[in-house]
Amino acid sequence: MSENRFAPITGTVMPRYAGVATLMRLPYTPLTDERIRDVEIGLIGVPWDGGTTNRPGARHGPRQLRDVSTMVRNINRASGINPFELCNCADLGDTPVNPVDLNDSLNRITAFYTEVCRAGIVPLSVGGDHLVTLPIMRALAKGRPLGMVHFDAHTDTWNRYFGDNPYTHGTPFRRAIEEGLLDPKRTVQIGIRGALYNDSENDWGERQGIRVIDIDEFQAMGVDAVIDEARRVVGDAPTYVTFDVDALDPVYAPGTGTPEIGGLTTLEAQRMIRGLRGLHLVGGDVVEVSPPFDPSGNTALVGATLMFEILCVLADSIKRRR
Amino acid sequence: MSENRFAPITGTVMPRYAGVATLMRLPYTPLTDERIRDVEIGLIGVPWDGGTTNRPGARHGPRQLRDVSTMVRNINRASGINPFELCNCADLGDTPVNPVDLNDSLNRITAFYTEVCRAGIVPLSVGGDHLVTLPIMRALAKGRPLGMVHFDAHTDTWNRYFGDNPYTHGTPFRRAIEEGLLDPKRTVQIGIRGALYNDSENDWGERQGIRVIDIDEFQAMGVDAVIDEARRVVGDAPTYVTFDVDALDPVYAPGTGTPEIGGLTTLEAQRMIRGLRGLHLVGGDVVEVSPPFDPSGNTALVGATLMFEILCVLADSIKRRR
Amino acid sequence: MSENRFAPITGTVMPRYAGVATLMRLPYTPLTDERIRDVEIGLIGVPWDGGTTNRPGARHGPRQLRDVSTMVRNINRASGINPFELCNCADLGDTPVNPVDLNDSLNRITAFYTEVCRAGIVPLSVGGDHLVTLPIMRALAKGRPLGMVHFDAHTDTWNRYFGDNPYTHGTPFRRAIEEGLLDPKRTVQIGIRGALYNDSENDWGERQGIRVIDIDEFQAMGVDAVIDEARRVVGDAPTYVTFDVDALDPVYAPGTGTPEIGGLTTLEAQRMIRGLRGLHLVGGDVVEVSPPFDPSGNTALVGATLMFEILCVLADSIKRRR
Amino acid sequence: MSENRFAPITGTVMPRYAGVATLMRLPYTPLTDERIRDVEIGLIGVPWDGGTTNRPGARHGPRQLRDVSTMVRNINRASGINPFELCNCADLGDTPVNPVDLNDSLNRITAFYTEVCRAGIVPLSVGGDHLVTLPIMRALAKGRPLGMVHFDAHTDTWNRYFGDNPYTHGTPFRRAIEEGLLDPKRTVQIGIRGALYNDSENDWGERQGIRVIDIDEFQAMGVDAVIDEARRVVGDAPTYVTFDVDALDPVYAPGTGTPEIGGLTTLEAQRMIRGLRGLHLVGGDVVEVSPPFDPSGNTALVGATLMFEILCVLADSIKRRR
Amino acid sequence: MSENRFAPITGTVMPRYAGVATLMRLPYTPLTDERIRDVEIGLIGVPWDGGTTNRPGARHGPRQLRDVSTMVRNINRASGINPFELCNCADLGDTPVNPVDLNDSLNRITAFYTEVCRAGIVPLSVGGDHLVTLPIMRALAKGRPLGMVHFDAHTDTWNRYFGDNPYTHGTPFRRAIEEGLLDPKRTVQIGIRGALYNDSENDWGERQGIRVIDIDEFQAMGVDAVIDEARRVVGDAPTYVTFDVDALDPVYAPGTGTPEIGGLTTLEAQRMIRGLRGLHLVGGDVVEVSPPFDPSGNTALVGATLMFEILCVLADSIKRRR
Amino acid sequence: MSENRFAPITGTVMPRYAGVATLMRLPYTPLTDERIRDVEIGLIGVPWDGGTTNRPGARHGPRQLRDVSTMVRNINRASGINPFELCNCADLGDTPVNPVDLNDSLNRITAFYTEVCRAGIVPLSVGGDHLVTLPIMRALAKGRPLGMVHFDAHTDTWNRYFGDNPYTHGTPFRRAIEEGLLDPKRTVQIGIRGALYNDSENDWGERQGIRVIDIDEFQAMGVDAVIDEARRVVGDAPTYVTFDVDALDPVYAPGTGTPEIGGLTTLEAQRMIRGLRGLHLVGGDVVEVSPPFDPSGNTALVGATLMFEILCVLADSIKRRR
Repeated sequence: MSENRFAPITGTVMPRYAGVATLMRLPYTPLTDERIRDVEIGLIGVPWDGGTTNRPGARHGPRQLRDVSTMVRNINRASGINPFELCNCADLGDTPVNPVDLNDSLNRITAFYTEVCRAGIVPLSVGGDHLVTLPIMRALAKGRPLGMVHFDAHTDTWNRYFGDNPYTHGTPFRRAIEEGLLDPKRTVQIGIRGALYNDSENDWGERQGIRVIDIDEFQAMGVDAVIDEARRVVGDAPTYVTFDVDALDPVYAPGTGTPEIGGLTTLEAQRMIRGLRGLHLVGGDVVEVSPPFDPSGNTALVGATLMFEILCVLADSIKRRR
Repeated sequence: MSENRFAPITGTVMPRYAGVATLMRLPYTPLTDERIRDVEIGLIGVPWDGGTTNRPGARHGPRQLRDVSTMVRNINRASGINPFELCNCADLGDTPVNPVDLNDSLNRITAFYTEVCRAGIVPLSVGGDHLVTLPIMRALAKGRPLGMVHFDAHTDTWNRYFGDNPYTHGTPFRRAIEEGLLDPKRTVQIGIRGALYNDSENDWGERQGIRVIDIDEFQAMGVDAVIDEARRVVGDAPTYVTFDVDALDPVYAPGTGTPEIGGLTTLEAQRMIRGLRGLHLVGGDVVEVSPPFDPSGNTALVGATLMFEILCVLADSIKRRR
Repeated sequence: MSENRFAPITGTVMPRYAGVATLMRLPYTPLTDERIRDVEIGLIGVPWDGGTTNRPGARHGPRQLRDVSTMVRNINRASGINPFELCNCADLGDTPVNPVDLNDSLNRITAFYTEVCRAGIVPLSVGGDHLVTLPIMRALAKGRPLGMVHFDAHTDTWNRYFGDNPYTHGTPFRRAIEEGLLDPKRTVQIGIRGALYNDSENDWGERQGIRVIDIDEFQAMGVDAVIDEARRVVGDAPTYVTFDVDALDPVYAPGTGTPEIGGLTTLEAQRMIRGLRGLHLVGGDVVEVSPPFDPSGNTALVGATLMFEILCVLADSIKRRR
Repeated sequence: MSENRFAPITGTVMPRYAGVATLMRLPYTPLTDERIRDVEIGLIGVPWDGGTTNRPGARHGPRQLRDVSTMVRNINRASGINPFELCNCADLGDTPVNPVDLNDSLNRITAFYTEVCRAGIVPLSVGGDHLVTLPIMRALAKGRPLGMVHFDAHTDTWNRYFGDNPYTHGTPFRRAIEEGLLDPKRTVQIGIRGALYNDSENDWGERQGIRVIDIDEFQAMGVDAVIDEARRVVGDAPTYVTFDVDALDPVYAPGTGTPEIGGLTTLEAQRMIRGLRGLHLVGGDVVEVSPPFDPSGNTALVGATLMFEILCVLADSIKRRR
Repeated sequence: MSENRFAPITGTVMPRYAGVATLMRLPYTPLTDERIRDVEIGLIGVPWDGGTTNRPGARHGPRQLRDVSTMVRNINRASGINPFELCNCADLGDTPVNPVDLNDSLNRITAFYTEVCRAGIVPLSVGGDHLVTLPIMRALAKGRPLGMVHFDAHTDTWNRYFGDNPYTHGTPFRRAIEEGLLDPKRTVQIGIRGALYNDSENDWGERQGIRVIDIDEFQAMGVDAVIDEARRVVGDAPTYVTFDVDALDPVYAPGTGTPEIGGLTTLEAQRMIRGLRGLHLVGGDVVEVSPPFDPSGNTALVGATLMFEILCVLADSIKRRR
Repeated sequence: MSENRFAPITGTVMPRYAGVATLMRLPYTPLTDERIRDVEIGLIGVPWDGGTTNRPGARHGPRQLRDVSTMVRNINRASGINPFELCNCADLGDTPVNPVDLNDSLNRITAFYTEVCRAGIVPLSVGGDHLVTLPIMRALAKGRPLGMVHFDAHTDTWNRYFGDNPYTHGTPFRRAIEEGLLDPKRTVQIGIRGALYNDSENDWGERQGIRVIDIDEFQAMGVDAVIDEARRVVGDAPTYVTFDVDALDPVYAPGTGTPEIGGLTTLEAQRMIRGLRGLHLVGGDVVEVSPPFDPSGNTALVGATLMFEILCVLADSIKRRR
């Protein structure tokens, strides 16, 4: 492991606002780069929002997170973790996508992540809308349904839209369960809230065994108890972490497609993610950052910082497993 | 009751961002429409801010809430209430107003609501500045002083401005008490805070018997105790709910005329409104949404969602009374 | 013809910012409404941007134009035309679309316009991205290739994107020519500019016979000569007018997907459209208004006003033909 | 004349963004200040928009122009005029107003300007909406109808709104003519455009003898010819200059209540105002700057710079008369 | 003490948005004004951000706080304190600065505050970036190291940047301790969080004896216990209060140079400041308000209100000492 | 020359909004990269605004231009030039700077450009404020004063600020002339306008022989004549092109530190730059793009497109010289 080659550029030498922007100021290392064989965690953008049924713009998420994540430093003050010392991290660039063809995009994304997995790299991604988690899982979960810690305002387990469309950002986890990529009994959804179209849609996930902790239960339990419950649900088998920024109250993340008021605070989210330390984590993502609806840029800052929080527990998990 | 005629258009057929925008995607049903006789709850805009002493713009509130309220779905996840199944709801359009004549506007608004009441329709309104609640009450409270649950940063019981002006958005509830429209002993004000001009103005309401729960007392009591206290104050007689969005901390509602820091969270507000279930509710409003000061649009989203929360308890209350 | 039923609501009675927003304050008259048989010009929204290869958001165009077009009054000061006196105009609402399926959307849009045409209504549309003009033309041009006056920064006659995708907002007019909907020899493109990917793509249209007046030739000729040339090209056969707001310099229309600096002024655009008076016009549209990229709202104002300018010459043309 | 006491603070000593903001960095000199007797030109704010029929916010104009006008330096590069050397200039603060009472506001404004005139001070004002010019003229034009050079998109000579309201920002000059404050035969209106409600309203002013140069005629004549025509109309008797920023195209001045596309450029406006040099000018104003609709702040910059241009010709005119 | 001369202008006579903007509507009283001898608390702007290593703009803080602080009234509802009755307060204007020379700026600022102290005036300042607190302390702490209650996301006790630069907004308190201006054992830092570059930098302050209460400890202790701890640390010797708005979560204060998510709420901040009542306070400041990054203006509102909160405990402290 | 290695990524394969953002999508090639020996034109960012006397933010210019310049395609439609075919172009990254030390920054910038020149690379830069042109010229003009085509609202030939500071963004060209880097007799300044502090400062440049074409003369001459005059002035000796975006009217470029109304249009600017084809060009820059003041992003789009226009004439000039 070469610390020097994969360390972020420090802000005391090159100002944090300067230079070519990469995710967390890591070296841009595409899959064709020979240094790729040393990469352990790959930070990846998925610039696509073709599954969005309401306000678009999440396709611009990776570009903006490259910009804003240059604000993040190295050491997590709360946990003491320096992920860049634990693992070789790099920005692998954006996956190929096709803005005008949904199915082609899903295939391109899966193909990219298949290569990433083949190279032995653990992916930490930034979307894109939440449908992008499905093609990621198709590459990641081959032959073994994953557990999942899922932060969101919505369950994303609906069935069909606009007639008979199976693929939108409201359906990825129903598809993932149907395809055997996701184990509903090892899935916990946190922060669920907002109004519904009908009751039956809503119950499907829980009927499969998903543990739904809606915002009212979250408030009643408190962060520590929710952490315990989430750890209990996913156990010690391979687990994926997915964070839809609309899990947060929209004051923290206005730049998203389907905001719902009354959500998590960032402090709660940070504490939750830190509480996942020690789980068997095999990947993660932050999705639904939509820059056109983010006039102050705070959504991107939140997205970048939560990506760093996930990176910390992910690097720690990988290090422990070796 | 015809469910079909007054159901909101569903977002799984027509995207929520599409179509002519009406309040909560309900059918636009002006008072002259023959379908009006079936309407039980009328959603009404009052596009007027002539009582505003500082930053204007609340006149644009109804238009923006028509746009943003199309984001709201049917079923309140927390309470299970689907207001559109309980009552026939419709968008009655905006009241007549006169942007350049305060007294004429008050009269036009009262005249409109008098017709609404005569048609047996319970009004749920969106302002407009807080002065609009006065002409609404003049129509609604004829012969019986109402109780009121009042969310606000300010008591709005001041007396005079700029010499001898009795009507501004800081005075409606003093006038309402003086006119016998509002029973101060059945009035509770929640979220009050901010600096004052003088003490005597401030005491007037409490001297009349209003129960003021300022933000410090609110924090000390907690949401559940405040709900209990509010229910105790208003009892089971007819009660109005008025929500000035400046009750919320301005991070949730920057788009308002006189923001005060240190306010309620939206989650607290939602839980408070849900706690009013079972009261004898006869109307409600959300006021002081000022789009020109709302760059991210979050104030409108909050306003629309709280309007839906009030609609749920209002529809439930009407259903119970029949 | 009933003038009263299809007149815009006047701003001296109901303030222009108030009321349910419809296109130019016209009565909302869906195809199922019985009044539809009296409508001569139908204002229609196409809330879809699935053909967009770069910045999305044009799906929100119709909603925002409903809001802002309430600023427009009745009589064109420059030409003296009052389109609402010449023809019965109505807002027909938005076409069905499918945000997650491009081909399904094209079919839904064509089906809607086929009904519109069958009802004898001349359509004036607001997009949506520029691909929406293709399904409109499929309904409108049955059996007779149309002429076209096309304002744009781009020729939109490219062939394929992202591998082999024939349908994007950069390809509609190549497809329209191939399908026999558009007569290239009666097509004039005005305002073309910006950098290119390659020369051959660019030449295709001109090789088919399209008359391209790029921005430099436009400046050299002057507005009056360009009007003459456009009239000469399209002649007196049926002609469609399509206005992509990126024809304008982006200071006038920043809210669009692919802005190019150095474009038309609004005054030039207004004069150009007025110069089309007397042509045989059979429809028109304004496309690529993308509200998320329009912080000041000026793009929508421009879009609404140019839509009114097109409405004036369209109504005049229809009136003359009867 | 004391140059030192009334000179703007220079930006090479105190940065232009620093310090208490006054109009053009002049000393704040209220009417009660003893230095007032030396003031020759008084810069005055009228923070009131109660005559606005559509989008409000011009009440915030004076505050924002105080901020932005600190960007202006001393010497007009084009004309060589340094107004601060020609006349003692001061910021007289804002007039009293009453945000909730139209008639009271008109009276307060007239009373303030009556004092200003009595002190022999020539007023240069910033609104506020355009109705504020009426009470200014009531103080300024006592006994002698003024000539006027009027830049605007609208004639502001309409008669009644919302029933029978004589006073709105669309009516001031009809009232001024009726009251004998304004001589229609020495009035020129420049930049008029936009759609109309009806023809008769529109003709009234021209029937009184006003010379209307609409935007098309302006373009056809060119700036120099319009200057000549304006000078011919007003002659050498006392003349007022009023500049509604909606005379400009809204790309230059989006922050205004009733924008109309296709307007003047700032360069045309600057050249027009410079062309008024040598007229007998007795006051001027810039109105309808509405900061809440001005996200980039350019409207305020334009307003402040045009106020400086008017100041230059006003100071020159005063100097010549002494 | 003359109440009249130093009272804020009341908003019931002059609207709060009107008039020349001074800090809290107090009379502008530069050091050269003869009334300066009666001033007890001087509100001062330091319009300088030359120590900023990332996003600039805090130089515009004083100007914007002058604007927004006109929203603040007289009496603190929570504590009952009316600071303007307790002490003569005035706006002393901005200090001299040099935007292009760091060392010259530090000297100019210290010189200004030396005069302020010599006049017996207690300073309450608004920055500017956090480096401005250093030159203030150089004037204020002559011969006696001060205690400090410091609200911030960062410790600002780093050593060097960009080679060997000792003065940036990340280093003021290391310098202050080295220079004997600040007593680390009577210093408490509240709200610290965010990622770090390295551990050793971070430990320096605590090794000197600073009591650091980071955000996790803050949450665990609760506001009341933190108040007790802060009071214990600073004791009853002279103490300075410095509030960097990035102590707050960026949803409350997006307009700042180095935001860190997961911070204090404004309500927590207000309660903390009120808890300092009775300490021996000798000055205070609010820093790092950066208007260019504050699209909704909420950061300025927060900054102005917290400045008022500090003013209340400062005036109370001064009154007690007399 | 290897076309493949230095070609921009095409938007028909990778969407233009996707991927790691580099200037014009060129390969990032720092000076330490071995491919640097093949680079002929180096695109370079100078992320520094320490010379700014008013509104800061230009330090963020390079980052934003990396983002927005991905919108630019390959072939200049107007001139037919494809600069990427003429020369090997690369993004060399940002120069080292020191945000808190002006002199250190000037030295670091000069050192970087000295290496660039030594490598035989022609620099095309993006600032940063206008002071950055001075250290660039110090590297570029060794031993031979350059000619210069200078677009700006200001002459930037002032002498001292804030006492005795010789280096600000208002002084670079006075210093450059004094240091023998710039030949005033081969210097033309285009677009100059705005108010002045005093006359003598203003005359200095013209007294040295600079040809100043202010905005009025520009309008009177027309673009073609100004091109001729500029070509005459600089002749066929080595010439630098510097474009301060405040040369443009602020509607095109609001995001800049010292905007002046009444400026150039982008179309005029584009035509001017194209008119420089065939000159002996040795470098160029675009400066004063300040993203924090650019809510719509248009300034960055303009900056990126003008940078492409300069690149076209620069590549053509280099190609001709070989």
